[in-house]
Amino acid sequence: MTETETSSRVRAALPRGFADRDGADIAAAEAMMTKIREVYALYGFEAVETPFVEYTDALGKFLPDQDRPNEGVFSFKDDDEWLSLRYDLTAPLARYVAENYDRLPKPYRSYRAGWVFRNEKPGPGRFRQFMQFDADTVGSASPAADAEICMMAADCLEALGIERGQYVIKVNNRKVLDGVMEAISLGGPENAGRRLTVLRAIDKLDRLGPEGVRALLGQGRKDESGDFTKGANLADNQIEEIRRLLVFGGVGDLIDGSNTSTLEEWGKLRFAVNATFQNGLSELRQIAELTEAAGYDTQRIRIDNTVVRGLEYYTGPVFEAELTFETPGEDGRPVRFGSVGGGGRYDGLVARFREEPVPATGFSIGVSRLLAALRAIKSPIVAAPESPGPVVVLALDRDSDSMANYQRLVAMLREAARQDARDGKRNWSVELYLGDGKMNAQLKYADRRKSRVAVIQGSNERSAAGGPQVTIRDLKLGAELAKTTKDRADYLELRQRAQVSAPEAELVARVREVLARP
Amino acid sequence: MTETETSSRVRAALPRGFADRDGADIAAAEAMMTKIREVYALYGFEAVETPFVEYTDALGKFLPDQDRPNEGVFSFKDDDEWLSLRYDLTAPLARYVAENYDRLPKPYRSYRAGWVFRNEKPGPGRFRQFMQFDADTVGSASPAADAEICMMAADCLEALGIERGQYVIKVNNRKVLDGVMEAISLGGPENAGRRLTVLRAIDKLDRLGPEGVRALLGQGRKDESGDFTKGANLADNQIEEIRRLLVFGGVGDLIDGSNTSTLEEWGKLRFAVNATFQNGLSELRQIAELTEAAGYDTQRIRIDNTVVRGLEYYTGPVFEAELTFETPGEDGRPVRFGSVGGGGRYDGLVARFREEPVPATGFSIGVSRLLAALRAIKSPIVAAPESPGPVVVLALDRDSDSMANYQRLVAMLREAARQDARDGKRNWSVELYLGDGKMNAQLKYADRRKSRVAVIQGSNERSAAGGPQVTIRDLKLGAELAKTTKDRADYLELRQRAQVSAPEAELVARVREVLARP
Repeated sequence: MTETETSSRVRAALPRGFADRDGADIAAAEAMMTKIREVYALYGFEAVETPFVEYTDALGKFLPDQDRPNEGVFSFKDDDEWLSLRYDLTAPLARYVAENYDRLPKPYRSYRAGWVFRNEKPGPGRFRQFMQFDADTVGSASPAADAEICMMAADCLEALGIERGQYVIKVNNRKVLDGVMEAISLGGPENAGRRLTVLRAIDKLDRLGPEGVRALLGQGRKDESGDFTKGANLADNQIEEIRRLLVFGGVGDLIDGSNTSTLEEWGKLRFAVNATFQNGLSELRQIAELTEAAGYDTQRIRIDNTVVRGLEYYTGPVFEAELTFETPGEDGRPVRFGSVGGGGRYDGLVARFREEPVPATGFSIGVSRLLAALRAIKSPIVAAPESPGPVVVLALDRDSDSMANYQRLVAMLREAARQDARDGKRNWSVELYLGDGKMNAQLKYADRRKSRVAVIQGSNERSAAGGPQVTIRDLKLGAELAKTTKDRADYLELRQRAQVSAPEAELVARVREVLARP
Repeated sequence: MTETETSSRVRAALPRGFADRDGADIAAAEAMMTKIREVYALYGFEAVETPFVEYTDALGKFLPDQDRPNEGVFSFKDDDEWLSLRYDLTAPLARYVAENYDRLPKPYRSYRAGWVFRNEKPGPGRFRQFMQFDADTVGSASPAADAEICMMAADCLEALGIERGQYVIKVNNRKVLDGVMEAISLGGPENAGRRLTVLRAIDKLDRLGPEGVRALLGQGRKDESGDFTKGANLADNQIEEIRRLLVFGGVGDLIDGSNTSTLEEWGKLRFAVNATFQNGLSELRQIAELTEAAGYDTQRIRIDNTVVRGLEYYTGPVFEAELTFETPGEDGRPVRFGSVGGGGRYDGLVARFREEPVPATGFSIGVSRLLAALRAIKSPIVAAPESPGPVVVLALDRDSDSMANYQRLVAMLREAARQDARDGKRNWSVELYLGDGKMNAQLKYADRRKSRVAVIQGSNERSAAGGPQVTIRDLKLGAELAKTTKDRADYLELRQRAQVSAPEAELVARVREVLARP
């Protein structure tokens, strides 16, 4: 091969941050999503889906932590207008509701699963295409709508086999955080950037600890790799006020183990006089009362003032679904599994399109993250089903007459398999070997496909005196046979069971026999 | 509202060529795809999915009819490399197989459903995002692989309730067409463009008729709108040769109603001496024999030399699944439903990435087109399931204590619904009204949600002397009642059934009673 030929060849590679999915992954995600769908439906939520592409300005710019010029979104120009791939499912839903407002019931509860795209630097476990599964209630300003979303999130996790105590839905309110910031002179549009920096710092409490957050609230922080993150440049007394809030809930325990007692303590804090703070507190109190009335205790839904959520469009209550059990981390030491989803109230998002206010709240599950969690706890829901490989009819002679004859055998078997599926019996499948390997290669192929049965017919068998014969081989017994050759009697008996010759008319019955073996 | 305010508002609109999907559409497509999946699995095909984004050069440029500069693909630059949204599922599969070649079984049978994107001028029924459902066999050069794909396509349509006689899988071979073109001096790389023009002209036979095709083979054609399409500029004798081929199959009937007799006639044509033509003919003959041996007659799988398929990567047999029944066209007159999918052999696509040849063949179903067909024949598979709307618990008092109490009723009902679902009984759902409407607005909401039952509890009922009471209203009977007010006795009886007051403890039982009514 000349160098020119090599270089003219295209490289077979996925762009970084994108992944293929095999059959087991697809089936596991589907099984998981079916359960989630059932819970959403039980709450009266309806399916609706939007496309992957929207006008760039319809999506808006709400992504967290963006310093790349294109703001984390994949965009392309279409004639004179910019289009973007959606970066979440909430912004497109806002467009959908605004566009179809008059014909939708209000409040409008809906759910959708879908792929979203982030034009970010990919990293380990950090993809540029990933799936979210969202539920939203649009048109209700009531904290009861937020409470419902939290209860539904808890129900989803339990429906998936995550037990009480293994998860918690943490609830906070952006208004509480905003109120604190107003109280320490960070209000007003001129401080919007610093407020965002403060929120992002608090959001990292779990990962960086109090000292790390303190640094980010102040001058900034250098991480282990030497990268420096600019801080919010707060004064010491401002930092101290924020610390006061954060010692309740989240870091510490709930006061008296109760959401309402904890909220009562928040109400005694110095900045509790702030109206925004009061407002946020009142909403949280209602959520706490409603969830308690419906039987959700603080082990399941819990006030936690460290919850921030990165997206910029949240305006009120914010939620985070956290799995509390531990799994081995990258260094092998156990780490808390952490967040598998979150959400919050976004009262301004639909209003971007319409004159009247349209309050809304919702929740988004990270599908692959939750799938990893279910695999970690070995949930039966995502276990690969025991599907035996196909029955493989070998193609020993490949002249067109012989191939037509093999095809006829395949058609007979496939009709039987179809019948068994219709009758709710065994699910099995049938293949004709279509490669160009010899007998051994064909049997190896069957092994690779995890086949239980190979059907063999050479020209001698086909033209046998008493009518055409077929050989049915039990590949599992055959493999055992290869190991067990010590005892002559055993060997012969096993051999007889592992491979039988039969008239063609018995083909289906004999194959079913082998498939019925354990 | 000032003009500035208006103009700062974002327009809530989808870009042209994109569409939202409601619950009924999603459910119907899912039901349809489940059936297709079952057939693919029966043939031993495995699920695998690739992401939406690939390197632009990995996808290649194989789209038909492109004259826009970006060749029909949505692309964006990522650092120094161009990425594109996939325009079909075949090119990404070729990349996938090439990238994972060594660990895949060969031949490798796989299937996948997924959205694809075309940066084309959108039009009625012509979308820029649409779903395909593909099955492919990679690593087999045997016409038996092509035959299998055709039989599987036929099985899919029948599994969906499309009856024999309502569809046909038409089969042709690019080599036959290439052979004819070689024979009329259109061979060689210098004529590649003209050959493509000829293929596209033949592809339009259905729509434009023989005269239209003749014009496109010659100087070109002006359509009704006055747009001129350039022709292939063939000489009259060249056009005549192509016409000779096209009078057999496709336009006319099969010779003696048989695929093999028809192919025999093709073999007598003047250009049959051409080696490429011969080769194509031989492959078609094998496909005809194999499908016949498996019991697929010419009503189901049929040789047809007008089938071309627009994509440039096909190298051998090409297939088209056509629905033959008629539906009302745009002008109300019946038209043949037409194509719902197609495919063919693409031996060169994986080879772009790898040294060794990797033959492949596959089939792609247009999901929304097939869905439209199933709706046209009223297939029960895609009929909307009779799902009653949610039980709506009205929220008459909205102080937080009352709301908590309503929430408790909802939780009781929801637990019962969950139990019924677990027991495989009725599927039902429960909602708390979360809007801010009064009683009438709430009942209207319930109507809009197609609810059967509304649960009502005012403050008087809640504080009733003998313990809290609830009112359960049968909204269907209630609506009938509103119409039937003539007979006083009837009215009273109906009224009693349409609305009952009961102790809270009976809530679940009374709601179940109403849900059980026809």
